[in-house]
Amino acid sequence: MEENINLQHGSGGEKMTELLNKIIFHHLDNPILQERHDGAFLDISGKIAFSSDSFVVSPVFFKGGNIGELAVFGTVNDLSMCGAEPKYLSLSLILEEGFSISEFEKIIKSIKEASEKSGVQIVTGDTKVVERGKGDGIYINTSGIGVILPNSKIGIQHIRHNQSVLLNAPIASHGMAIMSQREGLQFDGEILSDTTNLNFTVKKLIATFGDKIHFLRDATRGGLASVLNEITSGSHLGIHLYEDKIQVKPQVKSACELLGLDPVYVANEGVFLCICDSDIRNQVLQILKEENPEASIIGHTTEEHAGKVIMESAFGGKHIVNPLIGEQLPRIC
Amino acid sequence: MEENINLQHGSGGEKMTELLNKIIFHHLDNPILQERHDGAFLDISGKIAFSSDSFVVSPVFFKGGNIGELAVFGTVNDLSMCGAEPKYLSLSLILEEGFSISEFEKIIKSIKEASEKSGVQIVTGDTKVVERGKGDGIYINTSGIGVILPNSKIGIQHIRHNQSVLLNAPIASHGMAIMSQREGLQFDGEILSDTTNLNFTVKKLIATFGDKIHFLRDATRGGLASVLNEITSGSHLGIHLYEDKIQVKPQVKSACELLGLDPVYVANEGVFLCICDSDIRNQVLQILKEENPEASIIGHTTEEHAGKVIMESAFGGKHIVNPLIGEQLPRIC
Repeated sequence: MEENINLQHGSGGEKMTELLNKIIFHHLDNPILQERHDGAFLDISGKIAFSSDSFVVSPVFFKGGNIGELAVFGTVNDLSMCGAEPKYLSLSLILEEGFSISEFEKIIKSIKEASEKSGVQIVTGDTKVVERGKGDGIYINTSGIGVILPNSKIGIQHIRHNQSVLLNAPIASHGMAIMSQREGLQFDGEILSDTTNLNFTVKKLIATFGDKIHFLRDATRGGLASVLNEITSGSHLGIHLYEDKIQVKPQVKSACELLGLDPVYVANEGVFLCICDSDIRNQVLQILKEENPEASIIGHTTEEHAGKVIMESAFGGKHIVNPLIGEQLPRIC
Repeated sequence: MEENINLQHGSGGEKMTELLNKIIFHHLDNPILQERHDGAFLDISGKIAFSSDSFVVSPVFFKGGNIGELAVFGTVNDLSMCGAEPKYLSLSLILEEGFSISEFEKIIKSIKEASEKSGVQIVTGDTKVVERGKGDGIYINTSGIGVILPNSKIGIQHIRHNQSVLLNAPIASHGMAIMSQREGLQFDGEILSDTTNLNFTVKKLIATFGDKIHFLRDATRGGLASVLNEITSGSHLGIHLYEDKIQVKPQVKSACELLGLDPVYVANEGVFLCICDSDIRNQVLQILKEENPEASIIGHTTEEHAGKVIMESAFGGKHIVNPLIGEQLPRIC
């Protein structure tokens, strides 16, 4: 087999079949994928969630992960944020002529591992090849189907005054892992992407608290600030944040300072926001802490300052957290 | 609003929200998409089909269509070929910095029209922007969910000896529309892409004949020859074709001859193959002819020459139709 991807690998002919058989079907095999029809046949009943994301992260391999696992975890997490149990993913690839087949295989292996870790199956997909200079190695789209969990009732319309806002993990690690690698920066203490699957944590939350969990959202592109502003603009409520409760790892903080970035705007991959009834906030925190001791209650919703996110510092100072204006970190996911 | 896409349009911030609101949500609005969560909430029960395809066609606008409607019809047709009624699509975009926003809007409008024509809804999606020279204007991924039609039983495992093979339309039009445009060729009689939705024809076939329809497949990349070879290799049967029954429009034939291409390897978008019981072949043909008078019965399956596709000419000569080797037409879909 060749060492690099060429246009024949996207032609629909023998070379493409060879690539699919030797790498994709070889690693990702399962009975549904094996049928190799134009689509997968699935048996599903009830309410489902359906989500799609393209991944164009650069570099493709970064500290703590690569584009393959990111593409699996990204869609798994989007389905989880709908209160669904992720079940099936599609995998569509846009490869650039000249991309290394051994790197390609590493990515597919990582997709396999990430799928197994998340308990999902890759059931259908597509492979296209574009000429050199019309892509950047590999772009991946994953779309996914999940089954809505029993008693789940997630939606911005369920957010009310004085509910609690929790965060499962420190912020800005993914974005700064990518940026420090792009800029060739070194810090005391490695900066690793936080990419991971959140589905089992979400499942536990909903199994335990049902419709007392009102909203879930992973804080990816645009970071925590963007998600919070989406919530305030969609719910017509305000959010009051406690600055000292928002965790940022020390080396991530240093990197942000060096590059003049505010961590609340930096992308995350394994960080999510949970809005729940106030009376269960400590129990929710307990469950989040089982996964990550740095989980915290970062704020509450309020009828005051509707439409605005207000951050209160440990010293009582307050400032508005605005939506992201301009481009902070291109191709972060 | 700017005239061209820039990196801010993919940042997750205000510019991205503006682009989504003014163009995507503006044209594609529906109640499910409006929820704007990480995924769409859908109510489905029973067996479904799930399919995904990325579209990288170049040029983006071609005679008879553009990448937008191609992306809708492509996934609609893949679901139809599973014997499903297409219902919901996702739409994920990879835009290149510098791409014209007015062309972008034309494509989104065309997506809207194609969705309406096919009776599907765009319910979720994603937008990414890559730097100039890392893409080619616009790449589109659509994934889709369809509900398996009652009495549908489509699968390569249902193909048996002496079933009939039908084609709904003349072949090679899409590929030659793209190629003649790329090469700047002119012919008597315009060559238009055959891109269209096949779901209503398929629905009628399955409603009328149920499980007497055994296999459906659209002959896209790699053309008719590739689909036929996939069938013979997957079913361990042979296929016997009648050369004079395979229709090619005269101007398409001229273009193929000029470029030294065999029409059976050229990509189609609105052409599909139907394998059914022999005793209903004329009735199936009747239904196909309602849509296109050039539909025809092009061959039959056979236990003879298992694994091979044999073409018989009007004069009785026979030759093997091999799988496509090498690249014929890059970025045709």
